[in-house]
Amino acid sequence: MKINSEWKLLGLIRERIKDFGVLQPPDITAPLTDDCAVINTCIANALISTDISIENVHFRREWATPFEIGKKAMTGNISDILSMAGIPRFAFVSIGIPRNIDTEYVLSIYDGMLDACDAAGVYISGGDTSSSENIVISITIYGAARGCGPVYRNGAKPGDGIFVTGRPGSSLAGLELLKSGDQDKYPSLTRRHLNPPCRIGLIDLIVNKYAPSAMIDISDGMLSDLGHVAEASKTGYIIELDKLTVEPELLFFCEMTGRTAADYCLASGEEYELLFTSNHALDDSFFDGIPITRIGEITRNGRLLKRGGLIVEKDLHGFDHFKD
Amino acid sequence: MKINSEWKLLGLIRERIKDFGVLQPPDITAPLTDDCAVINTCIANALISTDISIENVHFRREWATPFEIGKKAMTGNISDILSMAGIPRFAFVSIGIPRNIDTEYVLSIYDGMLDACDAAGVYISGGDTSSSENIVISITIYGAARGCGPVYRNGAKPGDGIFVTGRPGSSLAGLELLKSGDQDKYPSLTRRHLNPPCRIGLIDLIVNKYAPSAMIDISDGMLSDLGHVAEASKTGYIIELDKLTVEPELLFFCEMTGRTAADYCLASGEEYELLFTSNHALDDSFFDGIPITRIGEITRNGRLLKRGGLIVEKDLHGFDHFKD
Repeated sequence: MKINSEWKLLGLIRERIKDFGVLQPPDITAPLTDDCAVINTCIANALISTDISIENVHFRREWATPFEIGKKAMTGNISDILSMAGIPRFAFVSIGIPRNIDTEYVLSIYDGMLDACDAAGVYISGGDTSSSENIVISITIYGAARGCGPVYRNGAKPGDGIFVTGRPGSSLAGLELLKSGDQDKYPSLTRRHLNPPCRIGLIDLIVNKYAPSAMIDISDGMLSDLGHVAEASKTGYIIELDKLTVEPELLFFCEMTGRTAADYCLASGEEYELLFTSNHALDDSFFDGIPITRIGEITRNGRLLKRGGLIVEKDLHGFDHFKD
Repeated sequence: MKINSEWKLLGLIRERIKDFGVLQPPDITAPLTDDCAVINTCIANALISTDISIENVHFRREWATPFEIGKKAMTGNISDILSMAGIPRFAFVSIGIPRNIDTEYVLSIYDGMLDACDAAGVYISGGDTSSSENIVISITIYGAARGCGPVYRNGAKPGDGIFVTGRPGSSLAGLELLKSGDQDKYPSLTRRHLNPPCRIGLIDLIVNKYAPSAMIDISDGMLSDLGHVAEASKTGYIIELDKLTVEPELLFFCEMTGRTAADYCLASGEEYELLFTSNHALDDSFFDGIPITRIGEITRNGRLLKRGGLIVEKDLHGFDHFKD
């Protein structure tokens, strides 16, 4: 079925949300029907973030299924709430769709978004649709701050440990494999690029055990995002490259490319791993098989990378959409 | 200057917002820098709405200045908050920009948005940027409900009067003039399409004097939007075509096209006039030169148009993005 009516499509999207078995939370009224969603804000702080995903910039139809496209777009937004220690609650989805795209394709994008929402307790509460030359997915997400308050980027202090969840690096390798048409060689790497998880399952542990002083999610790349923390906190950092852990398949991939796993680990964006600082004298831990690794320390100034006790300077940057 | 860095562009946008002389409201922290804006929600109900504007669907670069494009996109969002009797407060702006567009052009879009925000007391609190094939502007707006609570679409009751602000109709005429290249013939009509006002100046009066039972803004077209109210309220309506008032220039334009001014008034979308129902026995009023006109009545069922006491049936619909 081709999309020939905006209102019909909106009706189908509403049905899909209901069919998914999502119960409307009690603190929202008028979702998806009036001009605005109405949220009863019996919480001290609301966290709001917005992200836009555009076809051929953030995703390609020939690389990802519509389910994966929708899931990743929503996951990135949920991760933004987690990165400030918030509880994700409501999402608002605007979508632009080319006229020649099938309704089922659009609903599969929503299925992917709903899958990510389901895992995080998020309710799609409003949105807009339009025709468009390329697929555009713009999501605004609303979260509640925890009792501890939001965790900002600017709270890192010299002496704080720098911690990272998971094993970043694979997403960039997966992207390179997709670009070169070799996606089947290392399926776990491409899967990681197309289906990155967010750390909804770790956030309670991080907040309660580490009491993070600053936090960010790795969306631009570890070095870029740590740079954001250092800049906001007016500090420096030392990263110990020997502490970085990556997926085993990335090591095999690196033998082929001749670059180091650390290169990928530091530069890889769209990972949605959490990077945080903490003054608790904690070392590495594991939770549900996911490592939380102490990879370095916040310093007064300077941005240094160490390997085997020696300082190595690097100049790696995250992906910048407008870079030539 | 061409856009070659997303972060540089974000920095320029932040500066533009500061240069505009906007003071950061006390109930928001971490705007434009962290992953989320943090809003202190000392209000009972938050209203959130989102709208997407896409080049060549909602606007054309050859018709409108970047200032007009930005202003109209923001005005439509502000209007969504007004249509539920809310107080617009914060906006989150995601923008997709083709690589060959000049930075000054993008900042002019923001100037237009800031101009609309300034008139309504709205603060741009966050956003995202991306490259894109066409210009995409996705805005999510956050408002506070008034003490009276939000006014929904579903509150209309049989016997309520139907009221409309301003003189809708010109926007559609302006669009037709732009499409046919005759935009200079009736400049006030094209101006109305490119620069529609929203009714921030009337909303206090409407809420206090009329206590609206249902309200909506005219974005799809008067008949479509009244249809949304009737459907949600499970009622019908009678519109008295003789009561519809339009801009004088629209009458001259209609002599040329052979269609009636009522045709334009009922079908014209993107007007951002408010349409509301009220059981207060009030007749027409004027405020700052803007009429509030009683154009009909909510009934138990049926959708009727009357002219000179006679019933005329019509089947006019608002603009639908996916219609063939």
